[in-house]
Amino acid sequence: MAFSIIGYDTLQAWQETVETADELLAFRRDAGVTWINIDGPGSAAAIDRLAEVYDIHPLTVEDILNAEQRPKVEEFDEYLFVCLKAIRLDADGELAFAQVGLVIRENTVISFRTGDAAGDSFEALRRRILGNGGRVRRMGADYLAYALMDQVVDEYFSTLEYIGAGIEEFEDRAAEESDSKFIADIQKVRQQLLRVRRAIWPLRDSLSFIIRMDNPLLHDELDPFFKDLYENVMQAAETLDVYRELVAGVMEVNLSAVSNRMNKVMKVLTIISTLFIPLTFIVGVYGMNFQYMPELRFRYAYPLTWALMLVIAGGMLIYFKRRDWF
Amino acid sequence: MAFSIIGYDTLQAWQETVETADELLAFRRDAGVTWINIDGPGSAAAIDRLAEVYDIHPLTVEDILNAEQRPKVEEFDEYLFVCLKAIRLDADGELAFAQVGLVIRENTVISFRTGDAAGDSFEALRRRILGNGGRVRRMGADYLAYALMDQVVDEYFSTLEYIGAGIEEFEDRAAEESDSKFIADIQKVRQQLLRVRRAIWPLRDSLSFIIRMDNPLLHDELDPFFKDLYENVMQAAETLDVYRELVAGVMEVNLSAVSNRMNKVMKVLTIISTLFIPLTFIVGVYGMNFQYMPELRFRYAYPLTWALMLVIAGGMLIYFKRRDWF
Amino acid sequence: MAFSIIGYDTLQAWQETVETADELLAFRRDAGVTWINIDGPGSAAAIDRLAEVYDIHPLTVEDILNAEQRPKVEEFDEYLFVCLKAIRLDADGELAFAQVGLVIRENTVISFRTGDAAGDSFEALRRRILGNGGRVRRMGADYLAYALMDQVVDEYFSTLEYIGAGIEEFEDRAAEESDSKFIADIQKVRQQLLRVRRAIWPLRDSLSFIIRMDNPLLHDELDPFFKDLYENVMQAAETLDVYRELVAGVMEVNLSAVSNRMNKVMKVLTIISTLFIPLTFIVGVYGMNFQYMPELRFRYAYPLTWALMLVIAGGMLIYFKRRDWF
Amino acid sequence: MAFSIIGYDTLQAWQETVETADELLAFRRDAGVTWINIDGPGSAAAIDRLAEVYDIHPLTVEDILNAEQRPKVEEFDEYLFVCLKAIRLDADGELAFAQVGLVIRENTVISFRTGDAAGDSFEALRRRILGNGGRVRRMGADYLAYALMDQVVDEYFSTLEYIGAGIEEFEDRAAEESDSKFIADIQKVRQQLLRVRRAIWPLRDSLSFIIRMDNPLLHDELDPFFKDLYENVMQAAETLDVYRELVAGVMEVNLSAVSNRMNKVMKVLTIISTLFIPLTFIVGVYGMNFQYMPELRFRYAYPLTWALMLVIAGGMLIYFKRRDWF
Amino acid sequence: MAFSIIGYDTLQAWQETVETADELLAFRRDAGVTWINIDGPGSAAAIDRLAEVYDIHPLTVEDILNAEQRPKVEEFDEYLFVCLKAIRLDADGELAFAQVGLVIRENTVISFRTGDAAGDSFEALRRRILGNGGRVRRMGADYLAYALMDQVVDEYFSTLEYIGAGIEEFEDRAAEESDSKFIADIQKVRQQLLRVRRAIWPLRDSLSFIIRMDNPLLHDELDPFFKDLYENVMQAAETLDVYRELVAGVMEVNLSAVSNRMNKVMKVLTIISTLFIPLTFIVGVYGMNFQYMPELRFRYAYPLTWALMLVIAGGMLIYFKRRDWF
Repeated sequence: MAFSIIGYDTLQAWQETVETADELLAFRRDAGVTWINIDGPGSAAAIDRLAEVYDIHPLTVEDILNAEQRPKVEEFDEYLFVCLKAIRLDADGELAFAQVGLVIRENTVISFRTGDAAGDSFEALRRRILGNGGRVRRMGADYLAYALMDQVVDEYFSTLEYIGAGIEEFEDRAAEESDSKFIADIQKVRQQLLRVRRAIWPLRDSLSFIIRMDNPLLHDELDPFFKDLYENVMQAAETLDVYRELVAGVMEVNLSAVSNRMNKVMKVLTIISTLFIPLTFIVGVYGMNFQYMPELRFRYAYPLTWALMLVIAGGMLIYFKRRDWF
Repeated sequence: MAFSIIGYDTLQAWQETVETADELLAFRRDAGVTWINIDGPGSAAAIDRLAEVYDIHPLTVEDILNAEQRPKVEEFDEYLFVCLKAIRLDADGELAFAQVGLVIRENTVISFRTGDAAGDSFEALRRRILGNGGRVRRMGADYLAYALMDQVVDEYFSTLEYIGAGIEEFEDRAAEESDSKFIADIQKVRQQLLRVRRAIWPLRDSLSFIIRMDNPLLHDELDPFFKDLYENVMQAAETLDVYRELVAGVMEVNLSAVSNRMNKVMKVLTIISTLFIPLTFIVGVYGMNFQYMPELRFRYAYPLTWALMLVIAGGMLIYFKRRDWF
Repeated sequence: MAFSIIGYDTLQAWQETVETADELLAFRRDAGVTWINIDGPGSAAAIDRLAEVYDIHPLTVEDILNAEQRPKVEEFDEYLFVCLKAIRLDADGELAFAQVGLVIRENTVISFRTGDAAGDSFEALRRRILGNGGRVRRMGADYLAYALMDQVVDEYFSTLEYIGAGIEEFEDRAAEESDSKFIADIQKVRQQLLRVRRAIWPLRDSLSFIIRMDNPLLHDELDPFFKDLYENVMQAAETLDVYRELVAGVMEVNLSAVSNRMNKVMKVLTIISTLFIPLTFIVGVYGMNFQYMPELRFRYAYPLTWALMLVIAGGMLIYFKRRDWF
Repeated sequence: MAFSIIGYDTLQAWQETVETADELLAFRRDAGVTWINIDGPGSAAAIDRLAEVYDIHPLTVEDILNAEQRPKVEEFDEYLFVCLKAIRLDADGELAFAQVGLVIRENTVISFRTGDAAGDSFEALRRRILGNGGRVRRMGADYLAYALMDQVVDEYFSTLEYIGAGIEEFEDRAAEESDSKFIADIQKVRQQLLRVRRAIWPLRDSLSFIIRMDNPLLHDELDPFFKDLYENVMQAAETLDVYRELVAGVMEVNLSAVSNRMNKVMKVLTIISTLFIPLTFIVGVYGMNFQYMPELRFRYAYPLTWALMLVIAGGMLIYFKRRDWF
Repeated sequence: MAFSIIGYDTLQAWQETVETADELLAFRRDAGVTWINIDGPGSAAAIDRLAEVYDIHPLTVEDILNAEQRPKVEEFDEYLFVCLKAIRLDADGELAFAQVGLVIRENTVISFRTGDAAGDSFEALRRRILGNGGRVRRMGADYLAYALMDQVVDEYFSTLEYIGAGIEEFEDRAAEESDSKFIADIQKVRQQLLRVRRAIWPLRDSLSFIIRMDNPLLHDELDPFFKDLYENVMQAAETLDVYRELVAGVMEVNLSAVSNRMNKVMKVLTIISTLFIPLTFIVGVYGMNFQYMPELRFRYAYPLTWALMLVIAGGMLIYFKRRDWF
């Protein structure tokens, strides 16, 4: 298991990788900011050791190791623990989730990232710190934590856009598709929305709690940043709600379209049958074998029968047309 | 990029247009009210410069440049930032949204307006200020901000009226239309309502926050005005909810009407078929070629068969009629 | 425009009518209670003048003139403004709304009543004051305001009873009606409920605000009265919710009944067709003209064919009956 | 009108019945607890007199006389007024409601009980007081009030159990019943639930208010009892919600079952028709009277035709079976 | 009835079983933690005696004896009472509920467990205490209570996983099953969810109350543990909500699939009928017995009729195909 360490202050930044938690001690500073990142599911033993070194509560360790942990914020004496979900789209356009745990100390942030979601959301930030710096280099560990969370939240919007594009496509097809597979596909989108919602909704409460709390680890100047983050999460949550309504709308349009199309087909078919049934009756009448049927001997009976049938069929067609049945 | 500046106090009012943020400095006053308006998406560089000149927080700049920003209010040390959505109807009756950002300082209001919504909601206000004045000239920057927001909120009602008129039209057609296009059209109205709702709902919270907050930038005498604005937004939000229910009602009436009409058609067609089927059977019987069929030789068999068939058909008709089947 | 003035104290009561707001000044007293009532949409100018005389905020004037004002309560320095909706049934049983605005000052109440709702809800109260008096004569302007609001709220219940009686009638017809007009009628009731709800719901918040607020204009002894009023409005609101559920239930019963009736008809018709189709096939067989068909020459073929057909028809009927198909 | 009086302290208990409110004065004590019970709708005059004797506010008198009063709690200077609904099942299993009003004074409780619900919920308590006593005799008027309310709330659960048993029965029948009467019956249960809900829900708020309020009439030691009562009402309210969902579930199962059964019948009937239609066509072909139809003279044409028809019918049956159509 | 007693402190742990509540007195200590566990429904008398010995309020005794008690927390002077529901799956995969009551005193926890749910959720904890100890041995009675509640909450997740697996199975079958039994089965899952929800939801409020309350029986260091427990219960509650939506989705997919399959069958059958009906008419025409029908004598009439019929059938098939009707 590898611990990636980045240290920086306004003037400089350096990067290091160590293998054990004990080696981390050597990099502990009182000034500047130290960011320790652990990627992939760490071994429980290594994380236990890290917890000892950094005074992390056993419950936090449990939360870090539990891949299904619900997004939350917890205050401890020495640190603040934030847990949130990163959402990415894998190669097949399937949703992949990763769990990000942040232990925020006075001048250290320890980040844990585990889960299916491929790629590293933090790479861009890492390069920014090691590169020319910018705002993050001028500020403390709390801003680093904010920047990490901001990174994760930013990714929500690309996921939402992808889902939104899918819904729009469904909207275009809703009036045409009549296969029940369409409904099943829509249901899959609904399930995706449910899963994303589960990742995003608790984060709203967590951020609202961060904004309201009065913890010396988060300096006052960070307030607008967290409020901004909160607004973003709210926007994502509202977008989700709108998507749910759109999906419901797509289903209604589709059900109505399927049923209307079916109705039209059945109506046309039934009209055809209904047109011929009286005619078939008439030809049946003159197919009877009674000895005394005067019409049979009448010279113009046959063409007159045809005429009668045409009149009946025409009359019915006109009647159906007038009633606007087809 | 052009900055339109209007300055006024109780006695006088003037208007100016400058090209760069630096030129604005010349117009900075300690007394009276200065209103700087930037229309259309400004260049990021120009707005950055403006932000420097007026001490605007980078996050506010980001919000101004982000056309998808959610309506919100944020307090900063030197100013208050309000973001809301203007809604207009374009020539085709389609909804067009514009984003209005307001930076409210002690005696300056900077307004940013970007987006699809054509026309200028603020023209009337501008003329009022430059003209004989009225209340706005006697009051401070906070009242100007209120007046700008009031302008935007007032426009919501004409949009809602337009949508409401459309829904009434749908209500009139609901019992007649049987095309699934009708349902698709109704869904479009639902989507419009969703989009308007997204613009209006967060504004409720923002205004409620403005009313509750104790910021020296907003004087106490403004309280009834903002409360009034809040009531208006509440009314718009409630109207939206009523519209949603009306749209749901239209869909139910339509579905029921479509299904009833279809049912009637099928019933009539099925009754016609059912009437003729026993008759066709009877004529089939006497079309059989058995050598020993006494009826065939019976002199009055043919008219009697007709009589029988008329009795059967009549009996069925009476039965169907009594059961109220058509 | 006429201003109707009633003045009273424990000992006496008088009534006057003046034409202009200025004349009202002559009737201003420091003791007793003065009630000024303006019926019908007043001219804006007259109300502006009244506002000057009685120090009414321009926003209140706007609210009074706006017939679509949402029910609300607003505290001003010198007075309390309450806006609520009166609901009446007109001659055709249609809902008619009127808007009642109350400006409550230390010993004056100014009431404004505009809108479609015919009749005068306040007549009874007026007679009570001018007559032998009762509680209202012994108490202050705040009680008068309460009495006016109570009058309006009392009328809600007769409206609700009327709607409730209509819903009960719909319930009785729900299982029989099969016309889609029934659904359209029910939707109209739903719309009425929506409109009444919009008038009543905001009043809940207003009254709850009145009860909680600590305004010297409303004396403590009025508390139980306003609480009682609040309970009444809550009861009306709950009744509305129950009605909504009843209406939804009526629609479900009706849809189910319509569909069941249709299904029964189609089933009977289809059974008739199905019974005759195999028989028609059989008679068709013996209508074939093959030279070598031994049955045709068989002496008892014809009665045997009938027997066969009766057996088939009977068998099918028994089968259908056993399966409980009709 | 009769007033039943019970007086008790730890040592003794006595019971008396008087006819007029004035006689009650003789039984007024400063020590012990006095419980006055008025059953059935009292005459307004008698209750007015009682109100004078016991200093009851006119609004409370109105509430007592109004049989449709919503459950509520109101604090007055000298007493606490509680109004709640008793629910009983009458002989036919129909819901019957009674209204219970309690005026709780320092050492007196006056209870009013009016309404359809037969029987006397308080008989058991009366016997307990007059008998060996138990906890109620050792405690004050507040405990008596609690005991009376507890009695009423206890009865809710037997009503709920009865309704619950009915719903279970509906659940068992849901998949079989196909009459629209079933839906109408279910709707009646829904209406019952709505009515019970209206009686129980406001009581939650009332009890929560009792627990939170700081009234010297309710001693601190009563707190756990009222909390317990509150929990019971919550449980009843939650049970109601579960029942609503169960009823909705029953309707869905029933609608689905009805529609499935109908579909099966129509499918079988349609398959029968479809099987015979091509055969009828074939026999029709050989019923044609063309002079030159070589098949008619072919010796084995008739049996071959039968063979052909059997092959066609069999083929169709196999095809339908393979497609799992019946 | 047996009382199982476990006593422990940091250094040692012992276990004892006694038969009567009086014997418990001998084991009362001021230091260390004593855990008394009563399994199965105890006799009321024994629990009354226990209540006397440990000063337990009569209402708590009632709650312990009432197997249908709603989850709750109550503070008493000397102890804290917590009631929650254990959920287990019995051998048939049916839900079984048990009620767990905890009386938390300064250094004693008394746990009561009654109900259908087989097995002992506390066995693992018991072994941990008597074994090498761990954290529970180093902490007080409050931690023991937490550990017991944690045990119960942990079991929720295995139940939820089981239900979730069932729902997934339903999802796989939703598009195929067409029996109304499927809907009935789904309804059973919905009922299970309702029952689990009833057990879990009130616990959220209880835990939130425990976290907020300031009771000396629960030491501050326990805060993170109860917060963690609260988060777990929240997660369980949210999972329940997701399951409800999934179940609703399964039903929608199933209804749509059933209706689509039925529609396809009916369409194919109707198309077959419609194809043959005009052909049957034609053969009927040439089955007529008119003496003067020139076609009958025409040499090639028969093959031409066949040709005509093939053309008609082919034309109809092409038309239906083009319209995408099958």
